[in-house]
Amino acid sequence: MNDIEAIDSYLTQSQPAAVDALCELLRIESISTDPAYKPAVAKSVEWTAGYLSEIGLKTEIWPTAGQPAVFAEWNGAPGAPTVLIYGHHDVQPTGDLSKWTSPPFEPRVDSTGRIFARGSADNKGQFFLQIRAVEAWLKTAGILPVNVKFLIEGEEEIGSPNLAALLQQKQKQLKCDLVVVSDTPLWRPGKPAISLGTRGITGLEMKVTGPNRDLHSGIFGGSVPNPIAVLCRVLTALHDAQKQVTVPGFYDDVVEMPRELREAWRAMEGEVAHEARDIDCAFSGEAGYSTLEQRWSRPTLEFNGITGGYQGPGSNTIVPSWASAKITCRLVPNQNPERIQQQLAEHLRKLCPPEVKLEFLLRKTGARPYSIDPNHPALAAAAKVLKDVYEVEPVRVREGLSLPILPMFKDILAADTVLLGFCHPACNAHSFDEFFDSVDLLRGARSAARFLAEIAPAIRK
Amino acid sequence: MNDIEAIDSYLTQSQPAAVDALCELLRIESISTDPAYKPAVAKSVEWTAGYLSEIGLKTEIWPTAGQPAVFAEWNGAPGAPTVLIYGHHDVQPTGDLSKWTSPPFEPRVDSTGRIFARGSADNKGQFFLQIRAVEAWLKTAGILPVNVKFLIEGEEEIGSPNLAALLQQKQKQLKCDLVVVSDTPLWRPGKPAISLGTRGITGLEMKVTGPNRDLHSGIFGGSVPNPIAVLCRVLTALHDAQKQVTVPGFYDDVVEMPRELREAWRAMEGEVAHEARDIDCAFSGEAGYSTLEQRWSRPTLEFNGITGGYQGPGSNTIVPSWASAKITCRLVPNQNPERIQQQLAEHLRKLCPPEVKLEFLLRKTGARPYSIDPNHPALAAAAKVLKDVYEVEPVRVREGLSLPILPMFKDILAADTVLLGFCHPACNAHSFDEFFDSVDLLRGARSAARFLAEIAPAIRK
Repeated sequence: MNDIEAIDSYLTQSQPAAVDALCELLRIESISTDPAYKPAVAKSVEWTAGYLSEIGLKTEIWPTAGQPAVFAEWNGAPGAPTVLIYGHHDVQPTGDLSKWTSPPFEPRVDSTGRIFARGSADNKGQFFLQIRAVEAWLKTAGILPVNVKFLIEGEEEIGSPNLAALLQQKQKQLKCDLVVVSDTPLWRPGKPAISLGTRGITGLEMKVTGPNRDLHSGIFGGSVPNPIAVLCRVLTALHDAQKQVTVPGFYDDVVEMPRELREAWRAMEGEVAHEARDIDCAFSGEAGYSTLEQRWSRPTLEFNGITGGYQGPGSNTIVPSWASAKITCRLVPNQNPERIQQQLAEHLRKLCPPEVKLEFLLRKTGARPYSIDPNHPALAAAAKVLKDVYEVEPVRVREGLSLPILPMFKDILAADTVLLGFCHPACNAHSFDEFFDSVDLLRGARSAARFLAEIAPAIRK
Repeated sequence: MNDIEAIDSYLTQSQPAAVDALCELLRIESISTDPAYKPAVAKSVEWTAGYLSEIGLKTEIWPTAGQPAVFAEWNGAPGAPTVLIYGHHDVQPTGDLSKWTSPPFEPRVDSTGRIFARGSADNKGQFFLQIRAVEAWLKTAGILPVNVKFLIEGEEEIGSPNLAALLQQKQKQLKCDLVVVSDTPLWRPGKPAISLGTRGITGLEMKVTGPNRDLHSGIFGGSVPNPIAVLCRVLTALHDAQKQVTVPGFYDDVVEMPRELREAWRAMEGEVAHEARDIDCAFSGEAGYSTLEQRWSRPTLEFNGITGGYQGPGSNTIVPSWASAKITCRLVPNQNPERIQQQLAEHLRKLCPPEVKLEFLLRKTGARPYSIDPNHPALAAAAKVLKDVYEVEPVRVREGLSLPILPMFKDILAADTVLLGFCHPACNAHSFDEFFDSVDLLRGARSAARFLAEIAPAIRK
C-alpha cells in the first residue's frame, strides 16, 4: 500500500468520526458581525486550534483588533516548499430562522449525506477537509511531503478588516510558497473547477440635493429641480445601449481573455441556463459577450440601491430634497480600484447638472482583481489530483466575485493562491439551509492530500 | 353709521373675545388621520356647531363614514342668493414636537399678534373669520344680505374621502349659488390674491422586477438586468431636455393662459425670487415659461419617491430584485386625470424593456383641475372688498396645488367657488410653528362681511 492508498483508507475509515467532529464545530455560533457572539467566535477558534494541535501541529491563537485567528504549522520537510492553507472559522448570521428546515446551529445529516448547518460550506466544512488531508498524512506516513501552515481567521464574513495588518505583523511566520484556499464551489456536483482568478471591486455612494427640504409638489412642482429625476438621468448615462459602461477610461486596462478560454466558456453556456429559470429572469448583459464571460471576465457597474423621497404606503406629493444611490463596480485584470473609483467620481461630477449639489460617500475599501498565471505549476497539480479523485476533467473558470485576500497574499506574502473548492454550487451559503455534502468532505480531503504530494516537486524552492 | 361701519366697529370691539374663542378651538387636538384623536375631532365639530348655533344659525352635525361635519344655515333672505361657506375643523398631525417653539395645541399669541398653534391657519382661523363675518351682520343689522350656509368638514386633511357622498346625500340642503372657501394664503402679507383656479392631480406607482430575489453582484453581476438601471432609464425618458413631459398626448388638452395673465405673472416674478434663496436651490423648470407660469398654468410629472435594493448604512453588493417609483402629475385646465393616468401607464409599458416585469399600483383618487370664469361677478366683488379692506389692488393668481373639493362642488352642487384666503404665505401649514395673524382674522372678517353685501346684487337668482 503506497502513501496515497493508506491516506484514502484512513480518510474513509475515519469519515464518520470526521463528520461528528465537523458537526461539533458547526454547533458553535461563530457569527462575527454581531458582538453578542464574540464568546462563540472565541470558542470556534479554540476548537480549531485544539484539533490542529491534536493532529500534531504547533498551534497559536492570534488575537487581532477584532476576532481571533488560529495559526498552525508543521515544518518537518526542510528544503521542501511551504503551503499556507487559509480559511475562516467565522460564519454569516442566520437570517430569518423560520426559513431554515432545521435550526442552523444544530447540524443535521440527511439520507444523502448532506450536512445542513450555518457555516457547513462557508467555510468550516471546507477548511476542515484541508485539516483532514494533513491529519491523514500525519496519521499514516507520519510526515508531510511539504511544510504546511494554517491561517484560519475569524473575520472573513465582515470583510477581513484586520487581516492585512496581521499578515504584515506575522509576515515571517507566514512565509510560504503557495496559498491554498477551499472557499469556492465545484462547477457542478461531481465536477470540480480550477479557478484562474477573481474580480476586484470598488464603488461609491452618491447623493444629489436640490431644495434644502422636501417641498409641496403642488406649490413648487414644475419650478424646482427634482433630485430623483436628476439622479436617474445621471445613472442612466453611465451605460450605453449595449450595456457598456460609459465612464471614460473604464475599459482602458481591461485584459481580454485568451480565445481558447472564451470558447471553452461559450461551450459551457448551456450548463448555467437553468439559473435563468431559477431566478425567473432572462440573462441580459453587455452585448458581444457570453453569460460566463460577462460574469468572469468583464467589469460591471451595478446599482446596489437607490433611495429618495417618500417610500411609505400610499402617496405623499412632494418634490424631495435629495436622492442617493449606491454603486459598485466589479473589476477585472488589470483594472485598478482606486483609479476606477476616481474616474467614476469625475464622470459623475461632469454628468451632474449645476441645479443640484453632488456629494460622494467614497468607499474606503475596495479590492483588486486577482489572476494566477494559467501556466502556474500548482494549477496543473490541482487539475491532476481533481481528475484522479473526481474521475472527470475539471473545468477552467474564473470567479465573478471578489476575494480581497488574494491580492493581499500576493502583496504581503508574495505568494500565489490556488482555489480548491468543494462545496455544491447551490449550497445556500449566506442563505438558509446551507449545506456541505459529506461526500465532498471525503473527496475534498482525498484531493487535498494528493495535492500536497503533487505540489512538492512542482514548486521549485 | 351704515351697516359696514357698524360691522367694522363690532368686529374691532369683539376682536379680543374672538381671539380667545379661536384659541379655545385651537386647543382641541382634532387630528383626523389618527384614530386615537377621534374624540377630539368630535369635540371640535361640537365646538363649531355650538358657536354657529349661538350666533343664530340653525345647526346640524352630520356624521359620515369617517369624521363628522357641521352644517349650519341662515335662510332669512328669501329671493336673495345663497352662499355656501366651506371649511374644515380637522388638522394635520403635529410632526416632531421638539421642533415647535411652543406646544402645538397650547395656542400662543406673540407680541406682533401672530397666533401660533396647529390648525391656526389651516383651517380653523380661516373658517372662523367667515363665521365672524356672519356673526357681525347678525349682531348689528340682525339680518344678512344673502342666505348663508356653512359646511365645515372633518376630513380635509385626509383627502375628504366621504365628502362627495355627503354632498350627494345632502344635495338639497346644500343648494347654493356660490361656494366661498378661505383656505389659501395672501399673495404676501398685506396683499391679498384673487385665485382663478387650481391644478388637478393624478399619479401611479410603478414597480419593475428583474430576478425573483436579490442576487450576489459578484456571482451574477453583468449577466442579469438591474431593475434600478431599468427604472432610471424609463423614468429619465419621461422628460426631454427642455423638461417637457414626453408622454404622447400629455399636452393635448392644455389650455394656454391669456397673454395678459402671463405678462402680469412675469411682472410678479421678482416677488418669489426670495423663495429660491430660502430653499437654497435655483428655480429650474420647463423651458419657455416663467416660474409662476410653471407652477400655476403648466402640468408636471414629478417623482415623489424612488426605492430599490439596499438602503442601509455601508454597502451590500447585490443586484436587487426590484425597484419602484411613485409618480404624480399636476394637471391644468382642461386635462383629465383618468386620461392622463392611462396615457402615462401606456407610455411606461412601451418604455419598459421586456427583460423586466412591470407592475402598476394605480392611485384610485385624483382630482380635476379647476377654473372659475375670470369674468365671474364674484371675482369682481371679491376684488372690490379686498381693496377696500387691504387698501391695495389684489393680484390675480392661480394655485399650483389641487383642491378636489372645487370640481366636486361644481359637479354636485353646480356652484363655482371663490377662494378668499387670508393666511400668511409662509404660515407653516402642515409644518411646525404654524400661525395665523390675528390682524388677518380681523381684516379677513371685515372682507368676508363686505363680500356678503357685495355679492347679493352681483349674483342674479
